[in-house]
Amino acid sequence: MPPRRSTRQVEVGGVPVGGGAAISVQSMTNTKTTDVEATMSQIRSLIDEGCQIIRSSVPDEASVASFKEIKSRMLREGITAPLVADIHFDHRLALGAIEAGADKIRFNPGNIGPPERAIEVATAAKNKGIPIRVGVNAGSLRKEHQLPDHSHDDRNTALARALADSALWGVELLDSVGHEDVIVSAKASSVPVSIEAYRLLANECDKPLHIGVTEAGTTLTGAVKSAVGLGVLLSEGIGDTFRVSLATDPVTELGVAFNILSSLGIRRRGANVIACPTCSRCDIDLIPLAEAVELELKGVKEPIDVAVMGCVVNGPGEAREADLGIAAGKGEGLLFKNGEIIDKVPEGELLVRLREAIAELISSRS
Amino acid sequence: MPPRRSTRQVEVGGVPVGGGAAISVQSMTNTKTTDVEATMSQIRSLIDEGCQIIRSSVPDEASVASFKEIKSRMLREGITAPLVADIHFDHRLALGAIEAGADKIRFNPGNIGPPERAIEVATAAKNKGIPIRVGVNAGSLRKEHQLPDHSHDDRNTALARALADSALWGVELLDSVGHEDVIVSAKASSVPVSIEAYRLLANECDKPLHIGVTEAGTTLTGAVKSAVGLGVLLSEGIGDTFRVSLATDPVTELGVAFNILSSLGIRRRGANVIACPTCSRCDIDLIPLAEAVELELKGVKEPIDVAVMGCVVNGPGEAREADLGIAAGKGEGLLFKNGEIIDKVPEGELLVRLREAIAELISSRS
Repeated sequence: MPPRRSTRQVEVGGVPVGGGAAISVQSMTNTKTTDVEATMSQIRSLIDEGCQIIRSSVPDEASVASFKEIKSRMLREGITAPLVADIHFDHRLALGAIEAGADKIRFNPGNIGPPERAIEVATAAKNKGIPIRVGVNAGSLRKEHQLPDHSHDDRNTALARALADSALWGVELLDSVGHEDVIVSAKASSVPVSIEAYRLLANECDKPLHIGVTEAGTTLTGAVKSAVGLGVLLSEGIGDTFRVSLATDPVTELGVAFNILSSLGIRRRGANVIACPTCSRCDIDLIPLAEAVELELKGVKEPIDVAVMGCVVNGPGEAREADLGIAAGKGEGLLFKNGEIIDKVPEGELLVRLREAIAELISSRS
Repeated sequence: MPPRRSTRQVEVGGVPVGGGAAISVQSMTNTKTTDVEATMSQIRSLIDEGCQIIRSSVPDEASVASFKEIKSRMLREGITAPLVADIHFDHRLALGAIEAGADKIRFNPGNIGPPERAIEVATAAKNKGIPIRVGVNAGSLRKEHQLPDHSHDDRNTALARALADSALWGVELLDSVGHEDVIVSAKASSVPVSIEAYRLLANECDKPLHIGVTEAGTTLTGAVKSAVGLGVLLSEGIGDTFRVSLATDPVTELGVAFNILSSLGIRRRGANVIACPTCSRCDIDLIPLAEAVELELKGVKEPIDVAVMGCVVNGPGEAREADLGIAAGKGEGLLFKNGEIIDKVPEGELLVRLREAIAELISSRS
C-alpha cells in the first residue's frame, strides 16, 4: 500500500483526524434527536461497538435543546467521544448547536443560504475553537455546481468534478474568515463518482478527508458497495475518517467499517473468521458451524483469527496459520492452536471445543 | 479507472476469458458431486443467477462418473455454460475428468505429485483442446514454495511472492509441453496478500487472471472482505474472471459478485437500490420500506436504479437521478420517475405504488 496522504491535522473533541492519526470510525444516530432517551441508548450501543465520533442531526430548534441535553448526559456518563451536529438549510441551527456544545459542525456551505450565513457559522465555530466538516453530497449539490442536464457525455467525471468543486468552494469560504480546522467530504451514492471526487480532493487540498459512499443501500448490498468504494480509496492512502452509510441499525455500520479496515490490515478489532465455501470434498456440515463460530466471536474485541475449514486441501494450511483452526475430516475435525494440532474432535463436539479454546486464548492474552 | 490489463485470451467452453472479453462471473457447487440430482438443481439456480462458469470438485473416481453424467445432463437441458473440474492430489482424476468432458481443469501443479504428473495432465488437456487453470492457494502451497517459519519480518509480502512464484512455476511447467491456454489464480484468505500476489502475476505473465479472496468467511463479513479485495484489483484493471468464495449458499456468491461489478460500473445486472441511512430528519419508517423494495427487485435482471430516500436534504436530488425514486416527507412521499415527480403518495401506499411503477418501467423497456 502507498503511504497515507499527508494532511493537516484537525482535532474533533479529542479525536485527532488526519496528519498521521489512525483512521477513525464514525456513525450517526437515526433516532429522533428530540427523543433523548432513545438517542442516548443508541449512542451507548455505538460506543460499545467502537464508534469514535458520533453524529446526530439537528433539524429544528427543539433538537438544539435535546442536543445540548445529550452532550451533557454523555459527559455525565463518562462518554468522551465527540458529538457532531449535522445541519442543513438553517444556519441558526448551526449557531445553536455550537452554543449547545457540539464538538464539530457538519454542514454544506452550499445549501445554507447566501455565503454570509456560512461565514457567520464559521466565525462562531472559530471563536469556540471547534472544527467544521464541509460535507457535500451529490443529492444536495450547491445550485451553482449542479450539472445542467440529466444526461451528459461523461456524467460520472463531471459529477465528481462538481462535487469536488463545490466542496473546495466551501473550504475557501471558511478559509476567508480564517477557519482552517476543516474536514472535507464529497459523497455520492455512485462508487466511481465518490472515488473520483475524493481523488480530486486528495490532490487539490491539504484537509483531512471524511470518506464514504452515501446512501449505499440495505445491509448486504450497501456493505459491498461501501467496501468497494472505501477499499479502493483506503488502499490508495486516501481517507482519514469514515462512515459506512447503510439503511439499517447504525450498529451494523460499525461492524462493516471495522471489517473493511481489518480486511486491508489497517486496523483490527474483533475476530476474523476464515471459512471455506465448502464443496464436494467437505464431509461435515461446515456452513452452520462457521456461522455459529462467528456468532460466538461477535462480542470479542481482541483481534483473533479463527479458521473453519472443510477438508485437507487448504484446511491444515489455513488452520495452522490462524490463532485457532478446525480442519475437518469425515465426521470429525483436527483442532489447531497457534499452528499446532491440539486435539481431534468428533463433529458434534467441534463447536463446544472451539468455544473453550477461544475462551482460553482470550484469557491467556489478558 | 485504468484500462484493463491486456492478456492472452483463453476460451473456456465458449466463454472467452481475458484478451478484452467481459469479466466473467463464476461459482462452484457445494453439493456432493456424486449426488447428481442435487448438483443439477444447484447448477440450475446458479445459471438463473447469471453464473457463467460452473465448477464442481472431483475428489474421487465415483465423482468422475457423476461429473460425466452432470455434463451430459446439462447439455440435454440446454445449459451451455462450461463445467470445470476441480482437482487436487490425484492426477488420474484430472485425466478422468478430461475424458468425462470437462471444459476446463483447475488444479495446482504443486500438489499433485512429481512434475511428470502435472505434465501428463497438461498433455491430455492440450490434446483435448481444453484450458487449465493453475490454481494456487495460500493454504496448499507447493512444499518448495512454503515459507520456512510461522513468523516472518514481512510475512504478507513474502507470502504474496511465494504464491505468485508457485503459480508461475506451474505455468512454466505447462508451457514446457506447449499448453498455453492457461488461466492463473493465487488466492489467500488475507486481502492484502491476495492483492499483492495478483499485482505480481499481472506484471509477470500474460495469462488471464482468475481473481478472488479465498475462504473469505460467512455472508456479510466474507462479502465485505471480497468486495475490498476484488474492488481494489478490478479498479486497477486486474482480473478477467472471478469467484466470490463465501461460506454460504453459492447462489448468494453471485449476488455479491454482480454487486461488486455493478458498484464499479463495470457491468450491471439487476437493481441498484440507493437508500438513505435515515436520521432524525426522517419522518417515515424508511428502513423496512427500503428492505421491502430490495426484496421486490430481487428477481429483476434488468439494470434499474431505485432511490428510497427519507427527507428533503438529498431525497429529491437522488430520487431525480434514479430511474424511480421516493423522497419521503412527513407521512408521505413524492414518487419520481425518470427525473420527474409523478405522484404524491401516503406512506402506507408507497410500496404498492412503487411496485406498480417498477412493473411499468420494466414492461416499457421490454
